Amino acid sequence: MGKQAIGVVGLAVMGRNLALNIESRGHAVSVYNRSREKTDELIAEYPDKKLVPAFTLEDFVESLEKPRRILLMVKAGEGTDATINQLKPLLDKGDILIDGGNTHFTDTIRRNQDLAKSGLHFIGTGVSGGEEGALKGPSIMPGGQRDAYDLVAPILTEIAAKAPDGEPCVAYMGPDGAGHFVKMVHNGIEYGDMQLIAESYAVLKQVVGLSNEELAKVYTEWNEGELDSYLIEITSKIFKKKDEETGKDLVDVILDRAAQKGTGKWTSQNALDLGAPLPLITEAVFARVLSSLKTQRVAASKVLEGPAARPLGAERDAFIESVRRALYFSKVISYAQGFAQLRAASEEYKWDLDYGTIAKIFRAGCIIRARFLQKITDAYTKDKAIANLLLDPYFRDIAKNYQSALREVVIAAINAGVPVPAFASAVAYFDAYRSERLPANLVQAQRDFFGAHTFERIDKPGSFHANWS
Amino acid sequence: MGKQAIGVVGLAVMGRNLALNIESRGHAVSVYNRSREKTDELIAEYPDKKLVPAFTLEDFVESLEKPRRILLMVKAGEGTDATINQLKPLLDKGDILIDGGNTHFTDTIRRNQDLAKSGLHFIGTGVSGGEEGALKGPSIMPGGQRDAYDLVAPILTEIAAKAPDGEPCVAYMGPDGAGHFVKMVHNGIEYGDMQLIAESYAVLKQVVGLSNEELAKVYTEWNEGELDSYLIEITSKIFKKKDEETGKDLVDVILDRAAQKGTGKWTSQNALDLGAPLPLITEAVFARVLSSLKTQRVAASKVLEGPAARPLGAERDAFIESVRRALYFSKVISYAQGFAQLRAASEEYKWDLDYGTIAKIFRAGCIIRARFLQKITDAYTKDKAIANLLLDPYFRDIAKNYQSALREVVIAAINAGVPVPAFASAVAYFDAYRSERLPANLVQAQRDFFGAHTFERIDKPGSFHANWS
Repeated sequence: MGKQAIGVVGLAVMGRNLALNIESRGHAVSVYNRSREKTDELIAEYPDKKLVPAFTLEDFVESLEKPRRILLMVKAGEGTDATINQLKPLLDKGDILIDGGNTHFTDTIRRNQDLAKSGLHFIGTGVSGGEEGALKGPSIMPGGQRDAYDLVAPILTEIAAKAPDGEPCVAYMGPDGAGHFVKMVHNGIEYGDMQLIAESYAVLKQVVGLSNEELAKVYTEWNEGELDSYLIEITSKIFKKKDEETGKDLVDVILDRAAQKGTGKWTSQNALDLGAPLPLITEAVFARVLSSLKTQRVAASKVLEGPAARPLGAERDAFIESVRRALYFSKVISYAQGFAQLRAASEEYKWDLDYGTIAKIFRAGCIIRARFLQKITDAYTKDKAIANLLLDPYFRDIAKNYQSALREVVIAAINAGVPVPAFASAVAYFDAYRSERLPANLVQAQRDFFGAHTFERIDKPGSFHANWS
Repeated sequence: MGKQAIGVVGLAVMGRNLALNIESRGHAVSVYNRSREKTDELIAEYPDKKLVPAFTLEDFVESLEKPRRILLMVKAGEGTDATINQLKPLLDKGDILIDGGNTHFTDTIRRNQDLAKSGLHFIGTGVSGGEEGALKGPSIMPGGQRDAYDLVAPILTEIAAKAPDGEPCVAYMGPDGAGHFVKMVHNGIEYGDMQLIAESYAVLKQVVGLSNEELAKVYTEWNEGELDSYLIEITSKIFKKKDEETGKDLVDVILDRAAQKGTGKWTSQNALDLGAPLPLITEAVFARVLSSLKTQRVAASKVLEGPAARPLGAERDAFIESVRRALYFSKVISYAQGFAQLRAASEEYKWDLDYGTIAKIFRAGCIIRARFLQKITDAYTKDKAIANLLLDPYFRDIAKNYQSALREVVIAAINAGVPVPAFASAVAYFDAYRSERLPANLVQAQRDFFGAHTFERIDKPGSFHANWS
């Protein structure tokens, strides 16, 4: 019996679907799961596929061509460490472990360095696209040793999603934790996108008064223009979906309590560590947290009154177009923040990230896939060193032409008592970023006053302290 | 020679001033510093004070009454661990180490537990008030073993600031890291307060057009009412201060690049971990970070245009009163978030924090001291279990009466292109917190659509998954 070019450890839905994806490209795949039931189920379900089951890690490792390529799809954290520790004595120098889980990039850096001491390669890779993406073609963000990546690149390229121009959505991100870091920021951006869409929904429903049917129509139309993206597409479909039990619109039956798996939180916490301003995505994370306090909110809604309802000042259709522009410009601002975080990380961790390529591999397979990502790639192609996407001519034009719509929508929402934390944060970031002078001079004066923390001057370099009292 | 009741290790400005504070209450104090110069300087400067120098840790430890009380005022982090490791073999069971540095509470939890194994007590205490507070009376937030606290309480009570009603600003916060945690949140709240004041300054200067002289007058007046606080007081003084070199108003000479020492960042990161919504303080932290990107901002200011200037719609004096109300209500919202974080932490770490007492000891000595803290104490006295301060009758009234001013100010700032991230975040939080229904149902629908993450229903318990395609 021949040996397989790759094996998958961990056969929960993501691992299983990636194994099937690899198999569908003509490769036999070794598969192993800690509990044998999942392996048996997979084989029973697909008896004709080239899936080669192993029931011990020894047999699994033995079944692979050298250098061995092992894709770990186990529970991130202790599960990954436990699996690595079991595998390690069975492996030979030059073998490659590929962690495709939702791993924190600092764990990936640690594992990459630890395993390198034993001559083992470790690729930490983001895999985005959910179950369906895993099966048919995800966006793949691998980081680790470059030469190890080259050995797995052919298979990853085959299984990756293909962008509209046919390019595969996979590329080498950089050393050690770079791949998992990019995936983390991808997820943070996803939080931002989803919150912005939710706020557009709230404004269209509560300020304009659109029905679900009208909302479906609006998002369908928006998906044909600049906002063309997977999340807008599924949003339009969501508003058409009926609840099978009650016959009502399903969206109205769903509880308004958003859950999270923590990667948005990681993105915000890292931005705070890096000193990279990421207010919009962080507002999105807190918005989910606040939504989960449903009981408190219901109680508060009975005692905390908002403003009286006001008729919409602008024309209805014109205002809907303003919401579209507000959404697009806010999205631009969110990505500007996310990509500035990538730049800060690249400098801090010495990764030499290629921002244009990152936007490119987001174009298909992943949750944030969108037509507008091409504009980001274009911006970095024109100027790799651009400090912030808002400075690129295309995005500058969007800022110029759409900022009044964003201001109008935030103001209408504030007047109506509709919370738009991410839209409002977008305006504040835009106005702060383009401020030659911010009131931070007062903050520095206060810090020097109460703590002798010193300040800088506008007219000469150095640190100064005033005798305030 | 008799032995001293307490000793201080680390004679940088905070340690030295705390030693002088203790001495001023009639106690002889043993003092030690790693490099002897600082000790010599202190003794030379105050030859008549009851400061007893030691030049080895052995002599220092030997000079103390048992159980020994040792206040560590060394560089937080590795400095603290190094000092503890050197002291440990010299100490006896029952001795008490008191860490008064700006230590992350998780380090304090670890050290408390480690030292307890050797029978040593460890108090981690927040000390707020800067240099002057350390010397004359800081606000003190100790956490650790209750019985150890009782042994240091008399001295801490003597040196603490006294509130207007004469009560000392010190109280036992809770076990292990509780004291340093409360200090961390205090600092986060301080970030929020300072950013809100900075935004009020930006609006008064850029929207209303007030001069520094007028600003000094406005803040002086504000300090006589609800906003009466140390930070408003020093703000009013800052606008009067002249630069000795140029004769200009000093505030205009100070560079608008705010620095930070990381405790605000910790507060936000912890809020993300706890799932406690803290958007306002986090916007304040990001605002400082964004201010530090001065070079980028100057470049951006040349290419990113804002809205055209508009004349102020409202009357000038009425609008200034709106800014005052916006500032006060936003401050209430910020404290509501900070105290909700304390509640979440108390539950998570099993600390049984007493929120009313915490507000009480903030009333003097510390940077955020303010008349309005009494209102927080009152609220928790009335109802210790209140989920959020906004639900208390006094704060509900503020919300009812001041929210239109806050909305007005945010709208005016947005129209003028003046960034008000914290004010805007306050509005969004208020409107979200009082929303019976948020658009998070759409977020859950999206998550179930692309990732089968399931959703809850409004009409029955359980987790549900829809067949979306």
